[in-house]
Amino acid sequence: MKRLFMLLSLFLALCATAMAQLHYHEATQFKVIGRPVPDASRVYTRLPDSLKGKVRDALWNLGQNTAGMAVRFCSNARQIGVRWKNHSVFNMNHMTATGVRGLDLYCLQDDGQWVFVNSARPGGRLANKSKIIDNLDGREHEYMLYLPLYEDIDSLEIGVEEGTGIGNPRMALPVESKPVVWYGTSITQGGCASRPGMAATNIVERRLNRVVVNLGFSGNGKLDPEVAEVMAKHDAGLYIMDMLPNCTSDLINEKIERFYTILRKAHPDTPILLVENPIFPPTRFDSEMRKEIEEKNATLAKFYKKFRAAGDKNVFFVSSAGMIGTDNEGTVDGIHFTDLGFERCADYMTPIIKRYLKE
Amino acid sequence: MKRLFMLLSLFLALCATAMAQLHYHEATQFKVIGRPVPDASRVYTRLPDSLKGKVRDALWNLGQNTAGMAVRFCSNARQIGVRWKNHSVFNMNHMTATGVRGLDLYCLQDDGQWVFVNSARPGGRLANKSKIIDNLDGREHEYMLYLPLYEDIDSLEIGVEEGTGIGNPRMALPVESKPVVWYGTSITQGGCASRPGMAATNIVERRLNRVVVNLGFSGNGKLDPEVAEVMAKHDAGLYIMDMLPNCTSDLINEKIERFYTILRKAHPDTPILLVENPIFPPTRFDSEMRKEIEEKNATLAKFYKKFRAAGDKNVFFVSSAGMIGTDNEGTVDGIHFTDLGFERCADYMTPIIKRYLKE
Repeated sequence: MKRLFMLLSLFLALCATAMAQLHYHEATQFKVIGRPVPDASRVYTRLPDSLKGKVRDALWNLGQNTAGMAVRFCSNARQIGVRWKNHSVFNMNHMTATGVRGLDLYCLQDDGQWVFVNSARPGGRLANKSKIIDNLDGREHEYMLYLPLYEDIDSLEIGVEEGTGIGNPRMALPVESKPVVWYGTSITQGGCASRPGMAATNIVERRLNRVVVNLGFSGNGKLDPEVAEVMAKHDAGLYIMDMLPNCTSDLINEKIERFYTILRKAHPDTPILLVENPIFPPTRFDSEMRKEIEEKNATLAKFYKKFRAAGDKNVFFVSSAGMIGTDNEGTVDGIHFTDLGFERCADYMTPIIKRYLKE
Repeated sequence: MKRLFMLLSLFLALCATAMAQLHYHEATQFKVIGRPVPDASRVYTRLPDSLKGKVRDALWNLGQNTAGMAVRFCSNARQIGVRWKNHSVFNMNHMTATGVRGLDLYCLQDDGQWVFVNSARPGGRLANKSKIIDNLDGREHEYMLYLPLYEDIDSLEIGVEEGTGIGNPRMALPVESKPVVWYGTSITQGGCASRPGMAATNIVERRLNRVVVNLGFSGNGKLDPEVAEVMAKHDAGLYIMDMLPNCTSDLINEKIERFYTILRKAHPDTPILLVENPIFPPTRFDSEMRKEIEEKNATLAKFYKKFRAAGDKNVFFVSSAGMIGTDNEGTVDGIHFTDLGFERCADYMTPIIKRYLKE
């Protein structure tokens, strides 16, 4: 009896192993959306090779992080997993490793909504493996797998059970033409979302069902003209200039006109949003921080009026009042948005973007 | 001229150093609220010494984490900082180090609302130091400093500039009598809030201005009767039994009556809420996970009806439908709440708690 029980246990264990055996598919064979440089030789980059050594190293390195990119595929699998290699094991004390180096999966519903399935959490090593979901219904669904916000991807494979199908998406959603191209800082890059899908750019992408290209560079949204050139290559539906937390008033005075002009010359009619510095929660208490932000916002407003006065009817000013709510709770460290802050930011920005976005 | 400039720079640097020089005060001399064992010899513990070696090690160790505790003080400082030592350097891949091992500060406003000031982020070592806020108005304010959710505190000091006052609070808020005593799992303990103040128990505490005692034990909300004994020592305004994610139906069947009876015998009329397992987002896709949760919730409902049928008019059943919203976005990993999930959970639970809470 005991022997029979042991054999039965072994059999069940083998069945479980067989069920968990996934067959992995190189992700770059599927559509990767949100690429800031669609014609780059490497898929997982946000800056063109031509800028290597030309822009500051910090900017270049952040340009290799995969913020805002996602793999689109369809599958009738009952289980989905991923294997991926990051370029390094980057950690921050105010952001989860899952947001920094992990991935998360969304599934398209019949009503056109993208719904969170689950996340793939990284370990402490470069190479990671994670089963994302099990016991799916076995029907074909459209999926979107968001890539890490603050790390590079050296390789990525998507696993489904052997014998089940996985392939390129059948539905062209989110729409890739006329994307929103969002330039900015660590916050734009997704600091500090708990998982990639909760960065504001990714939330807005799902809500609009339109690709949002993420050109946020942590600590480096310093109006580099080279980034404006990358943006100008896109036939965008809308540009967002959201870099104030990384700029001093002096820097704005020195660099914003050139940056803006690169976009405007290439695209005379494309809407450009100039976004104020968020009202960071500690400004309620820290009078110096408050003054500094007010001054920068006034400098931005000055240029907005100047661009308008010069006849630009497609440049718009976005106040930050209420952008992350009014209860002071939207950040982890007084600056970087949490999922709560990003949700509020998306609630705030989506209707503004919709109002101006070109089809 | 160059020499004058250097001297001036040196002078300014010295001024800055002097400004940044904080004088530190041992935190236990101030009021520490949310202590599950108010008469324990050590301040920063959630279980009585008598349980050491008696309860499972995992439970005991989690009982040393400071979830739900806060230091209350008042000060007219213009700068506030902290120095603290954690017991170990615990990291998780789905929670920020600031939530696990850090602290955050709230300030009481004239309208009775607690408002987030800023957080104290830990480094990679046991000993940490962080300036939380600068350029305050120099008037006396009431502060609440939340302690780490998933680590122990070996020592904690609060720093203010020399010559400014710091002392025990002048206002007895949050009210300590008739606290809410909330028993549960990793989620109750605060996984995965971005910072301590965003755990549901702490949000609800601020909204009610009533102390909420946190007895969440990650992976260990397994209906240990010893924890019920700790809860029963409180003259609570309300008890919450919110342990289902750590229980199987078998475990509920085996242990819930004893746990409940310990509370009920000690406090015949105190409201007890029985909370369903949250509808974890992946249940929308994972049929097995969905079935398991439905089964556990049915088991809980069975006991609710039994307690009611036995004449208990102060036991209540809390459905989890809509507890963290309906858009599937409230978690980092399909289970643990983010700040967004906790905010929604607090929105959901606060009116329910208010309805039943005894004064």
